[in-house]
Amino acid sequence: MAHDEFRPISGVDLPRFAGIPTFMRLPHVSLDDPRIDQVDIGIIGAPWDGGTTNRPGPRHAPRQLRDHSTMIRHQNSVTGIRPFDLMRCADLGDVPPNPADLMDSMERMTHFFDRVRDRNITPLTAGGDHLCSLPILRALARHRPLGMIHFDSHTDLFHSYFGGFRYTHGTPFRRAVEEGLLDPKRVVMIGIRGPAYDFEDRDFARSVGITVIPIEDFHRRGVEDVMEEARAIAGTGETYVSYDIDFIDPAFAPGTGTPEIGGPNSYQALQVVRLLHGVNVVGADMVEVSPPFDQSGGTAFLGVTVMFELLCILAACRAERTGARTS
Amino acid sequence: MAHDEFRPISGVDLPRFAGIPTFMRLPHVSLDDPRIDQVDIGIIGAPWDGGTTNRPGPRHAPRQLRDHSTMIRHQNSVTGIRPFDLMRCADLGDVPPNPADLMDSMERMTHFFDRVRDRNITPLTAGGDHLCSLPILRALARHRPLGMIHFDSHTDLFHSYFGGFRYTHGTPFRRAVEEGLLDPKRVVMIGIRGPAYDFEDRDFARSVGITVIPIEDFHRRGVEDVMEEARAIAGTGETYVSYDIDFIDPAFAPGTGTPEIGGPNSYQALQVVRLLHGVNVVGADMVEVSPPFDQSGGTAFLGVTVMFELLCILAACRAERTGARTS
Amino acid sequence: MAHDEFRPISGVDLPRFAGIPTFMRLPHVSLDDPRIDQVDIGIIGAPWDGGTTNRPGPRHAPRQLRDHSTMIRHQNSVTGIRPFDLMRCADLGDVPPNPADLMDSMERMTHFFDRVRDRNITPLTAGGDHLCSLPILRALARHRPLGMIHFDSHTDLFHSYFGGFRYTHGTPFRRAVEEGLLDPKRVVMIGIRGPAYDFEDRDFARSVGITVIPIEDFHRRGVEDVMEEARAIAGTGETYVSYDIDFIDPAFAPGTGTPEIGGPNSYQALQVVRLLHGVNVVGADMVEVSPPFDQSGGTAFLGVTVMFELLCILAACRAERTGARTS
Amino acid sequence: MAHDEFRPISGVDLPRFAGIPTFMRLPHVSLDDPRIDQVDIGIIGAPWDGGTTNRPGPRHAPRQLRDHSTMIRHQNSVTGIRPFDLMRCADLGDVPPNPADLMDSMERMTHFFDRVRDRNITPLTAGGDHLCSLPILRALARHRPLGMIHFDSHTDLFHSYFGGFRYTHGTPFRRAVEEGLLDPKRVVMIGIRGPAYDFEDRDFARSVGITVIPIEDFHRRGVEDVMEEARAIAGTGETYVSYDIDFIDPAFAPGTGTPEIGGPNSYQALQVVRLLHGVNVVGADMVEVSPPFDQSGGTAFLGVTVMFELLCILAACRAERTGARTS
Amino acid sequence: MAHDEFRPISGVDLPRFAGIPTFMRLPHVSLDDPRIDQVDIGIIGAPWDGGTTNRPGPRHAPRQLRDHSTMIRHQNSVTGIRPFDLMRCADLGDVPPNPADLMDSMERMTHFFDRVRDRNITPLTAGGDHLCSLPILRALARHRPLGMIHFDSHTDLFHSYFGGFRYTHGTPFRRAVEEGLLDPKRVVMIGIRGPAYDFEDRDFARSVGITVIPIEDFHRRGVEDVMEEARAIAGTGETYVSYDIDFIDPAFAPGTGTPEIGGPNSYQALQVVRLLHGVNVVGADMVEVSPPFDQSGGTAFLGVTVMFELLCILAACRAERTGARTS
Amino acid sequence: MAHDEFRPISGVDLPRFAGIPTFMRLPHVSLDDPRIDQVDIGIIGAPWDGGTTNRPGPRHAPRQLRDHSTMIRHQNSVTGIRPFDLMRCADLGDVPPNPADLMDSMERMTHFFDRVRDRNITPLTAGGDHLCSLPILRALARHRPLGMIHFDSHTDLFHSYFGGFRYTHGTPFRRAVEEGLLDPKRVVMIGIRGPAYDFEDRDFARSVGITVIPIEDFHRRGVEDVMEEARAIAGTGETYVSYDIDFIDPAFAPGTGTPEIGGPNSYQALQVVRLLHGVNVVGADMVEVSPPFDQSGGTAFLGVTVMFELLCILAACRAERTGARTS
Repeated sequence: MAHDEFRPISGVDLPRFAGIPTFMRLPHVSLDDPRIDQVDIGIIGAPWDGGTTNRPGPRHAPRQLRDHSTMIRHQNSVTGIRPFDLMRCADLGDVPPNPADLMDSMERMTHFFDRVRDRNITPLTAGGDHLCSLPILRALARHRPLGMIHFDSHTDLFHSYFGGFRYTHGTPFRRAVEEGLLDPKRVVMIGIRGPAYDFEDRDFARSVGITVIPIEDFHRRGVEDVMEEARAIAGTGETYVSYDIDFIDPAFAPGTGTPEIGGPNSYQALQVVRLLHGVNVVGADMVEVSPPFDQSGGTAFLGVTVMFELLCILAACRAERTGARTS
Repeated sequence: MAHDEFRPISGVDLPRFAGIPTFMRLPHVSLDDPRIDQVDIGIIGAPWDGGTTNRPGPRHAPRQLRDHSTMIRHQNSVTGIRPFDLMRCADLGDVPPNPADLMDSMERMTHFFDRVRDRNITPLTAGGDHLCSLPILRALARHRPLGMIHFDSHTDLFHSYFGGFRYTHGTPFRRAVEEGLLDPKRVVMIGIRGPAYDFEDRDFARSVGITVIPIEDFHRRGVEDVMEEARAIAGTGETYVSYDIDFIDPAFAPGTGTPEIGGPNSYQALQVVRLLHGVNVVGADMVEVSPPFDQSGGTAFLGVTVMFELLCILAACRAERTGARTS
Repeated sequence: MAHDEFRPISGVDLPRFAGIPTFMRLPHVSLDDPRIDQVDIGIIGAPWDGGTTNRPGPRHAPRQLRDHSTMIRHQNSVTGIRPFDLMRCADLGDVPPNPADLMDSMERMTHFFDRVRDRNITPLTAGGDHLCSLPILRALARHRPLGMIHFDSHTDLFHSYFGGFRYTHGTPFRRAVEEGLLDPKRVVMIGIRGPAYDFEDRDFARSVGITVIPIEDFHRRGVEDVMEEARAIAGTGETYVSYDIDFIDPAFAPGTGTPEIGGPNSYQALQVVRLLHGVNVVGADMVEVSPPFDQSGGTAFLGVTVMFELLCILAACRAERTGARTS
Repeated sequence: MAHDEFRPISGVDLPRFAGIPTFMRLPHVSLDDPRIDQVDIGIIGAPWDGGTTNRPGPRHAPRQLRDHSTMIRHQNSVTGIRPFDLMRCADLGDVPPNPADLMDSMERMTHFFDRVRDRNITPLTAGGDHLCSLPILRALARHRPLGMIHFDSHTDLFHSYFGGFRYTHGTPFRRAVEEGLLDPKRVVMIGIRGPAYDFEDRDFARSVGITVIPIEDFHRRGVEDVMEEARAIAGTGETYVSYDIDFIDPAFAPGTGTPEIGGPNSYQALQVVRLLHGVNVVGADMVEVSPPFDQSGGTAFLGVTVMFELLCILAACRAERTGARTS
Repeated sequence: MAHDEFRPISGVDLPRFAGIPTFMRLPHVSLDDPRIDQVDIGIIGAPWDGGTTNRPGPRHAPRQLRDHSTMIRHQNSVTGIRPFDLMRCADLGDVPPNPADLMDSMERMTHFFDRVRDRNITPLTAGGDHLCSLPILRALARHRPLGMIHFDSHTDLFHSYFGGFRYTHGTPFRRAVEEGLLDPKRVVMIGIRGPAYDFEDRDFARSVGITVIPIEDFHRRGVEDVMEEARAIAGTGETYVSYDIDFIDPAFAPGTGTPEIGGPNSYQALQVVRLLHGVNVVGADMVEVSPPFDQSGGTAFLGVTVMFELLCILAACRAERTGARTS
Repeated sequence: MAHDEFRPISGVDLPRFAGIPTFMRLPHVSLDDPRIDQVDIGIIGAPWDGGTTNRPGPRHAPRQLRDHSTMIRHQNSVTGIRPFDLMRCADLGDVPPNPADLMDSMERMTHFFDRVRDRNITPLTAGGDHLCSLPILRALARHRPLGMIHFDSHTDLFHSYFGGFRYTHGTPFRRAVEEGLLDPKRVVMIGIRGPAYDFEDRDFARSVGITVIPIEDFHRRGVEDVMEEARAIAGTGETYVSYDIDFIDPAFAPGTGTPEIGGPNSYQALQVVRLLHGVNVVGADMVEVSPPFDQSGGTAFLGVTVMFELLCILAACRAERTGARTS
């Protein structure tokens, strides 16, 4: 069993509405805390939306996600995984952004995740807009390109905006491919949809070998068939999972800046994560939750439930990799 | 035809936004009203959430459900059932709770439902939190255990909370089994899901013979197959139907205190009730609607639409039992 | 290519939150503007809800739909249609209603659409309540009856309300049949559901030969099968498409005055329009969006996404009819 | 003491959230109820907004006002008046409107209030938009003109709208003066403000002798000085009190269709009513509360608190007129 | 200067939206933390609303108040007080309530505040409903009665509810007087208003010597005159300050369960606290903030701004008492 | 009279909910439109919040302000000014921002306002966050420093944020003074309040001769006295008026990113503008309205009402300067 210090407070002991909200009621262990060396999986907030081209808001997401994460319990009722039994988990706090300087913010994030990687902590990040994934990949993929399974309604493979600006939440994976952080042959993008400017992004994907599974194929083929292909594309190599909340239909996840009609329902939103079993996942993120557009908080609650599924996958995968429990 | 006195006011006569809102625009007939002896089916409010462990609110549900029930019309457009032609229906008003004393409230509720049962009125109750079902069962099942078809995302079979407290909205059916109010072999729980503390509740269910159909089975098998099993489990004996609004996915029913991601959609929410045909239903409830978390009122509207489906089943069943119309 | 003047402003040039909102960021070309003769397809607001019997609000819809339409881009990512390449499109502004006089408002609307028809502009109208479709049909079907594909949860075939009043949003198609504006044999109504007063409307439909496909058949048969029948009913004759937002389930489209539980999801909402390919569509509307009941704006966003699908069909159909691009 | 039957249910007995909501938890006594002859003061809903020129909604006000009126208690804590001790009060239900026919609705309302007047019941009406006051005055002032104290941000003295239409919520008192229902010399309008089309209404007021006290005078002179003048203008003759919720600043009363910035605060909103002591008030209304624009319900709560103050004045005035308690 | 460890994080360093939210961004120091002995002033959450008779919600207040408290800065711009320079402040976390057992919750709270008192920490508590003040007083006034300055729209001096139940949020100070925790001659209640059941509470106040200043006197006399009397009543003895958010007008503080119209505005809400200078304040609370009724969060923000004013008074008073800075 | 082309559409002709929303229903005249040379006063949107350090949102303000501006009419009911009779007014559209590049956005804005100034158009700008005022001043004050009357709860005179970043919405007037765009002796800042980091900003103000009137002085001295001083400080020289919506108390204006408790009420908010009569105003702005935090739209409506008051002042002042009507 993991040390009790790294387990959530139970709602049968302290009601869920009480207490200072950390991610999943885990202990707050900053990178400077001496306990940091015992942590296996770190949940990290990236409160930043400097890359947003339309409706801002994700800078407020980590706090709202922490709040709603107090509703999460300990055991996956479908797979039976108990992540806090498997791994020592902690809330590592927030990456400190600079809301007035996009480039400085990206450097701060890369630096933070370099430290996380150096301590051999598996990161589960709560964004932030999707540009956050770029500095995370710069840290995690510093030494070799990663595969990626990407749930989203957009490819985020665009070249530039507003007369050539190359860093927005619509461009992170174009940059990541250019910088050699991703192995395009091991990248799959699932759920792509919505009215498009053009197909420049999909042309780029095709040219480098990224697989795009648009929503009409997702609905036609079904979750299991799609995820079987996704697992095959990722293969056995190290793989990152990036989950944009706008993957899910906006009736289930209204709180996001660029929703697209006609996405998966909430059950499919969880299923796709469960079907990542066997993938060698080394990190994951949940991005683009936007509290100002989520009056009921339902999007945040869906977001943290997906995060719990991601945590189960990360814990099971790390347990398998290390051959045993870490403690 | 039922006496006109016990029929809803039509929206073609008086607009739906006008008039003092009773359940489905039926006459208000209190237990002390001389007309009470003519009533076949009574719709009852149980404005009480003393058993709520996290986010309170269901005490406000009966009023909001009445408000939205003015949108309901007279005929089931799928089954063709016209409940107000079949049975004399009335709004019996609210059970008077004591918000400051949980035990006193439960006694008041039991007493109220004893009187309902003694008048041979079939009750359709609008909660309130799920602990309401316990005093209802104490009245209805006073003389023999009932079967139960239970739609929910939680089993509500837990033993206790907060250091041994045995009466919360997470425990009513554990108590009901212990008190002999339910025949566990004739109990089925459908839609169970969500991160769990542990499987103590499911272990208890197994030990006494309650059938639990988790959501992954529901989605895999389909509504018709699941409901066929449910009908078989209930058999021909007297059966109670308890419907927790959190059975339905929170995108459809956000106004509830303990939502769980990945539930049935709204069409399935109605279908499961329609597929209760042939079950010997002697009472039903709709619980856990929570207006403070339902800003648009959509959850209440969904709740009363399910209540109309339940009313159709109750009316058809009672008509069949009594061999004929009661009037 | 269509003249650049009749194309939307791109969000990569001017951010989506900037600029005065016209429909899909198209130029505003009023009927008195000299450029009107170049317009192929006109998007028109009908801000009027004088026919509403319960919860008013659709008078505010055109403005909210314009606002959210700035999120729409240029290309249909499933069918590949680029409507603004095919046809010269413009925002023709709003029909001027008289909120205090229902009959005067209908005359104003008929007059406006007469002018649109006389200029050979294909109209895509944003209502308003469903009574708006009647004056539109009076203009478009002045010379011969049209077929109609009608997406809705109600037939809108009722005879009268409130003691004989014959013009409400529940009666437009009864009037249209009586006035010879529709050919009932070429009319199909899809998605009908909800508690009913009685089946007077369906009896009328049957008596004149209108096909009604209720929601239980829709869910059982599936989208493709239903739409194949719809296309067969419409045949090759000129056909109008009327899309009431309450066709869609209220979890996806809460912002409407008379929601009914259990409708299609958002993906099906788009699919049914895509499956109109080959139908000879001469006009379309999107009605009953009600901003006061749509706090998040999600209904309006869904509404304009459906409108974009309708625009794609209208543009492709007109391109086929005219044998070529108009410019 | 008034008969117990005509007293509100106390919140110490039945919690305020329980029970079917009537106005101030009084018994519902319709005009056809035999108990109607015992009623001194009747609270009446007028759910109608057919005269609204911009944002509809007041048709929903009576229901929301009833809901929030359950928060009201029995005694005026400033004046000490206990209206339910002084007079037998009841909720008379709603006037049945015809939402599709403005003229028919006005006739229905006049007829209803004729019956109220014939039974010598003092009416306190919850609108509805301000056009409701016209049919009320047609009944109450049938035999002689009344004085009026009018709290509002608009004079509602305009001649016509939309090309000559003479009945909107901007014209009721122009019509009432023309019809001889009001004695203009005994009419005072308090709180008038906001950007104006022109001063046609104020010119009319001047020409017939109506006193207009604009908001800048109200703020400069203070409540007591203004109300002293108001009492002097009303004199000792029979006087109607019409209270438009938009009299109050929109920060306190956002839920209304035509708010104007810079009005009185909530304390002044109550004070002006208390300072009606000694006026011979024979009826009163609270109009223009619009629930769709009142998400928190705060406007309705303010509205019913003002209604309680009006009720205290009506009860004290009637007690004085009749020389004694009526029972 | 206070040790840097006990100072808020500045928004110029870490943006206000980032970081795990503690009260005023202070360090979290639980009662079991070794640093607890250095703390002078502890901010404490009491997430509990078991005493609420109508609309529940304050159990969620501490979390929402913490969230909004990240907007607070370091210096009082009117008085110039810098509380974090004067005293070592910390967030002591939440008292663990038992939502299912009122008596047990009160015991847990008394026990918690006994420990706070024993460490000589001055408590500033964020409720919770007003019944929270009773267990706090049981701890703080264990050895001698305290004076109290009480801002509220209700006296909370009622005897009992619901057939004799003696512990609700309407009774704490009746109990406190009975238990000898308050010296009634040194108690003043300011802002009392609203429709009343009767004057039983005010009669009790008079009989024991509590001074009640109703809102009409507050508005007539003005803030400075009223607070001069309040300071005189409190005198030089140890005094508790209890601040119910419903003291303030509901336009400024809608998020509360029992609002009353006509209260002080937000500037007066702060002024009354500043005018406590010179009072010997030994503890304070801010109660009845109810997030479910505070959609915009504005009530919580007002609440924490009042808490900052209270903190300034507590810090200045303790600095004066101890003759010097504590560090 | 001004040409009819430059007058608002009246709500008596076209209902206020109809039509594409431009500022105050004026014609849209872009800088490239040939009619631009006839425009006297231009209303301009600056949809940009790149300088926001905490809660973003003002980028959405111009659109929401345009929407609510359709409620504005033609005549100031207090001063009698009819701005559209005095001056030819138009909506000049939005400045095109670059949401991803703060420096580029400021250059675009300066360039836009250079063109406005060169055409001798008096600008009334709807921001955007307060950093917008800097590029406006760079254009308007290019040739000589201006005086400024500044309504706000913050001085916006801070030096830098986040480790030296010099351009945020907290710094524009520090930069403007440094760049010689403002004459500090002719600058007055009114309404300053809220918890402060420190008094560095006020020290700077004092050092350069800017007058700061904090809120406690505003409330103590009264509006008229304060504005008399403000007029004296501005003198007869050219003066800019900058109005941050957070000047007003957040109960009246919740929709803003950095509210501060205890500000002026809505009547005072209008009064201060009316009391600018006689000041030589050459431009004005209304900034920091933030739609995502303004669910009811009340803040936008207050904002446009203040803008109408500013427009009256600008029109009257320009009429006086030019000695006569311009047409």
